[in-house]
Amino acid sequence: MTLAEIAQRIGCDVHGDGSVVIESVAPIESAQPGQLTFLAHPRYAHFVATTGAAAIIIGRNTPAPAIPALLADDPYRAFAKALALFYRPPEFFAGVHPTAVIAASARIAPGAMIGPYAVIGARTTIGAGARIASHVVIAEDVAIGDHFTAHSFVSIRERTRIGHNVSLQSGVKIGGDGFGYTLGDDGGIMKIPQIGRVVIEDDVEIGANTTIDRAAIGETIVRRSAKIDNLVMIAHGCEIGSGAMLAAQVGLSGSTKIGQYVRMGGQVGCAGHLSIGDGAQIAAQSGVPNDVAAGSTVGGYPAVDMRVWRRISAALPRLPELFRRLRRIERHLDLAGE
Amino acid sequence: MTLAEIAQRIGCDVHGDGSVVIESVAPIESAQPGQLTFLAHPRYAHFVATTGAAAIIIGRNTPAPAIPALLADDPYRAFAKALALFYRPPEFFAGVHPTAVIAASARIAPGAMIGPYAVIGARTTIGAGARIASHVVIAEDVAIGDHFTAHSFVSIRERTRIGHNVSLQSGVKIGGDGFGYTLGDDGGIMKIPQIGRVVIEDDVEIGANTTIDRAAIGETIVRRSAKIDNLVMIAHGCEIGSGAMLAAQVGLSGSTKIGQYVRMGGQVGCAGHLSIGDGAQIAAQSGVPNDVAAGSTVGGYPAVDMRVWRRISAALPRLPELFRRLRRIERHLDLAGE
Amino acid sequence: MTLAEIAQRIGCDVHGDGSVVIESVAPIESAQPGQLTFLAHPRYAHFVATTGAAAIIIGRNTPAPAIPALLADDPYRAFAKALALFYRPPEFFAGVHPTAVIAASARIAPGAMIGPYAVIGARTTIGAGARIASHVVIAEDVAIGDHFTAHSFVSIRERTRIGHNVSLQSGVKIGGDGFGYTLGDDGGIMKIPQIGRVVIEDDVEIGANTTIDRAAIGETIVRRSAKIDNLVMIAHGCEIGSGAMLAAQVGLSGSTKIGQYVRMGGQVGCAGHLSIGDGAQIAAQSGVPNDVAAGSTVGGYPAVDMRVWRRISAALPRLPELFRRLRRIERHLDLAGE
Repeated sequence: MTLAEIAQRIGCDVHGDGSVVIESVAPIESAQPGQLTFLAHPRYAHFVATTGAAAIIIGRNTPAPAIPALLADDPYRAFAKALALFYRPPEFFAGVHPTAVIAASARIAPGAMIGPYAVIGARTTIGAGARIASHVVIAEDVAIGDHFTAHSFVSIRERTRIGHNVSLQSGVKIGGDGFGYTLGDDGGIMKIPQIGRVVIEDDVEIGANTTIDRAAIGETIVRRSAKIDNLVMIAHGCEIGSGAMLAAQVGLSGSTKIGQYVRMGGQVGCAGHLSIGDGAQIAAQSGVPNDVAAGSTVGGYPAVDMRVWRRISAALPRLPELFRRLRRIERHLDLAGE
Repeated sequence: MTLAEIAQRIGCDVHGDGSVVIESVAPIESAQPGQLTFLAHPRYAHFVATTGAAAIIIGRNTPAPAIPALLADDPYRAFAKALALFYRPPEFFAGVHPTAVIAASARIAPGAMIGPYAVIGARTTIGAGARIASHVVIAEDVAIGDHFTAHSFVSIRERTRIGHNVSLQSGVKIGGDGFGYTLGDDGGIMKIPQIGRVVIEDDVEIGANTTIDRAAIGETIVRRSAKIDNLVMIAHGCEIGSGAMLAAQVGLSGSTKIGQYVRMGGQVGCAGHLSIGDGAQIAAQSGVPNDVAAGSTVGGYPAVDMRVWRRISAALPRLPELFRRLRRIERHLDLAGE
Repeated sequence: MTLAEIAQRIGCDVHGDGSVVIESVAPIESAQPGQLTFLAHPRYAHFVATTGAAAIIIGRNTPAPAIPALLADDPYRAFAKALALFYRPPEFFAGVHPTAVIAASARIAPGAMIGPYAVIGARTTIGAGARIASHVVIAEDVAIGDHFTAHSFVSIRERTRIGHNVSLQSGVKIGGDGFGYTLGDDGGIMKIPQIGRVVIEDDVEIGANTTIDRAAIGETIVRRSAKIDNLVMIAHGCEIGSGAMLAAQVGLSGSTKIGQYVRMGGQVGCAGHLSIGDGAQIAAQSGVPNDVAAGSTVGGYPAVDMRVWRRISAALPRLPELFRRLRRIERHLDLAGE
C-alpha cells in the first residue's frame, strides 16, 4: 500500500513523497524501512530525526520531518486507523467444528464459526456472525446478540444475557456464584444461594481471565461500550456504567455501581455498595472506601481528592523530618516530648 | 408458592395476608408485584414504603410495613433461606458424557455427572454425587470425597486431596508448581522442585480463576469450611484455617498460616512465613508484613491496628497543613527551617 | 536411597551414619523417620533438636546435630538438589492423543506428548521434547522451541514466538489483545487494533492464570530466564528483562520495561511507559509511578527509596501524635491553630 493510499483511507494529508510503499507499522524507536510510524506524545519527539521508518504520522502543527509524513488532526487516532489496515484477524474455524457439543434446543444463527470442543447448552440463542473459538463453554438459557466473539476457555454460565458486538478474551468467566455467606441456624457458615444473573450490553469488551459474578438476586450489569481489562474482578450485583474503562486487576466488591465513562487505573479496589459518579477518574492502585462524586478525580489509600493525594504523596517522604523539627522546637521551648 | 408456605418453610411469622403468591425474589429497590424482598440493613429502610414487592422479610422490631411481611429474628438469614426455595441449580450432564476421557484405573462412585471433554487421570478416586462440568481436568492420583462440584476449566493437579462437599467455580487451578527458585552452582537461577501437594478439606468453596499452588515439600492446606473468592493467590505451603473467608484478589506469599475464622477483605496481601491468628480481621487492600495476633483487626499499608489505621487515614489529608503550621512556629521562634 | 548416596549425588559431606535410608523429604517441623529435612534459616534452628527427621541438611558452620547430617556450603541449594531426587513429574499422554486437533500444516518434532483435546493451529511449529497437557490451545503461526511444557487451559494466540525450555502452568493466557482505546471520529470509544505479538525467550517459566498481552505494534517481550508467578498481568508492549522475577498478582501497565534481574514482590503495580533499571528490587504491593534506577530498592505507595519508605512506615502510626504535639506548642506560644 502506498502512503498516499493510506492517507486517503484514514483521512490524512500527505507531506512529501506519497508513492513510498508501506508494508507494516512499527513503534518509532524500532521502525525500519517499509514501515509507517507515528508521533503522538512529545516524549518521543526526539526519535523523529533518527527513526528508520519510511514515513510518519504527525500532528498538523508538528515541524515537518525529513521523511514523508501524514498530517492528522489527531495523530493517535489516525494511527489507530492505519493499524486497522494492517490488522490480520485471528483464524476461527469456518463453520461448526464436528466436535462442538451443541444442545439440540440451542438456536444459533447461520454462518456461525464454532471451534473444536466448544459446548453450548440447552435453549441458548446466539445471533448472527458469531466467532467462537475452541474450548468455549456457554451454559443453558444464555442469550447472546450478533457479532459475538469469544476466545478459548471462556465460560458463560446459565441465564446470562449478552448484547451485540461483545468480545471476550481467553479465560473470561461470566456468571459464577457471587461470594455470599451468612451465619446459619447452627452457627456455621451458610451459603446464600446466588440466583441472579449477569447482563452485558452491546459493544462491551472484556480482557483475559477476568471474572464477573452473577448477582445474588437481580442482575450484575455491564452497560454499553464498557471496556474491562485482564484479571478484573466484578462482584455480584455490581453495575458498570456505559463507556466505563477498568484497567487490569481492578476489584469491585458487591453491589457497587460505577457511573458512565468512569476510568479506573490498574489494581484499584472499591468497597461494596458504593456509588462512583459519572465521569469520575480513579488513580491506579487506589483503595476506595466511600462514594465518589461525579466528575471528580481521586487517588490514594484510602482514596481522596487527587490534588490532596498528590500533596500527601509529596509530604510523606518528609514525615521523619517533621518529627525532628518538632523535637527541636520542643527542646527550644523546654517542652518535654511525649 | 404463597407467603404462608414460605413462612412455614423458612421459619418466619406472617404479618398481613399470607395468601399472596410469590413467584420470585428481588432487591428492595427493583422488586415488582409477585416478588418477595427483604430489609436487612437500615441503609435501605427508606425503600420499604415505596417498594413494588408483594411482600417483605423484616426483623421483628422493624415497624410494620403496609405490604404483607415475614417477621424473622435474622432477616438476612431468612432471606437466604427463601432464596434457596427459588434457586435453580445449573444443569450438569446426566451420566458420563461419551467424550469424557477417564483413565481405566480411576474409580468414580456410581451416579456421577461428568460433562463433555472432562479428563480424569490414572488412579484418581471420586466419591458419590460428583457434578463435574465440561472441560474439567483432574490429574492422576487425586482423591476427592463425596458431593464434589467443579465447573468448567477447573484444573486439579496430581496427588491433590479433596474432602467432601467441595465446590470449585470455573477456572480454579489447584496444585500448580509453587514459585520457588534459588541460585544454582553456576550462579544461574535454579528451580526448586515442588514435590508437595494440596489438601482441601470438607465444605470448602473456591471462586473463579483462583490459584492454589502445591507445597515445595509437605502440603498446602485449606481447612474445613474455608471460603475463598475469585482471583485469589494461595502460594506454596500456606495453610488456611477452618471457616476463614478470603475476599477476591487476596494474595498470600509462601508458607503463611491463616487461623480459623480469619476474614480478609479484597486485595489484601500477606508476606511469607506469617502467622495470622484465629479470628483476625484484615481490612481490604491491606499489606501485611508481620504476624497478626488472634482476634485483632488490622488495616493499612503496612497494616497496623485498625483504630490506628483509621486515625492515620484521617490525619493523612492534613499532612500538608502540618508543614505549614510547623513553618509558622519556626518563623515565630526565629528557628531556621531545615 | 541411603544418606551417603544422596550426599554423593548432591555434593555434600556426611556427618554421622550414612547408611540411614531416606524415603522422602519433609519440612523440619513435620518430618518423620525415613525423611530428610534441612535447616536454611535460623528462624527454624530450634526445631533441630526435636525434629523427627532421619537426617538433616545443614550449613558447614551449624553445630553438629544429634541425628545424621549432610554438610553443605549452601544448605538451601543442597536441599533443592535433594528434592530433585524425589521429584515425580506429572504424567503427560505418551504420544499424541487421538482427540488432539492438529492442523495439517503444523510441524511438531517427533516424540511430542500431546494430551486429549489439545488444539494446534495452522503453520505452528513446536520443537523436540514437547509436553503438552490436555486442553491446551495453540493458535496459528506460533513458533515454539524445544522442551516446551504447557499445562491444561493454556492459550497461546497467533504469531507468538516462544524459545526453548519454556514452562507454562495451567491457565496461562499469552497474546490476548492489549487494552488500547482512543476516541473515534464520532466521539465514541474506538478500539486500537492490536497487531503486535508476544515473544518469550528461553528458560522462562510462567505461573497459573497469568496473562501476557500482545503489543499494539511491535512485541511484548519476556527475556531469557525470567520467572513470573501466578495471576500476573503483563500489558501490551512491556519488556521483562532476563532473570527478572515477578511475584504473584504483579501488574504492569503498557510499554513498561523491566531490567535484568529485577525482583518484584507480590501485588506490585507499575504505571505505563516506565523503565525499571537492572537489578532493582520493588517491595510487595508497591505502587510505582516513575522510573526506578538500576540497583535501587524501592517500596511504598507511591514507591520511594526503601529506607525512606521504612521510615515513613514507622512514622505513620505516630501521625496523630504529631498533631497533638503541634497543638500543644501552638497553645504554649498562644498561636491560634489553623
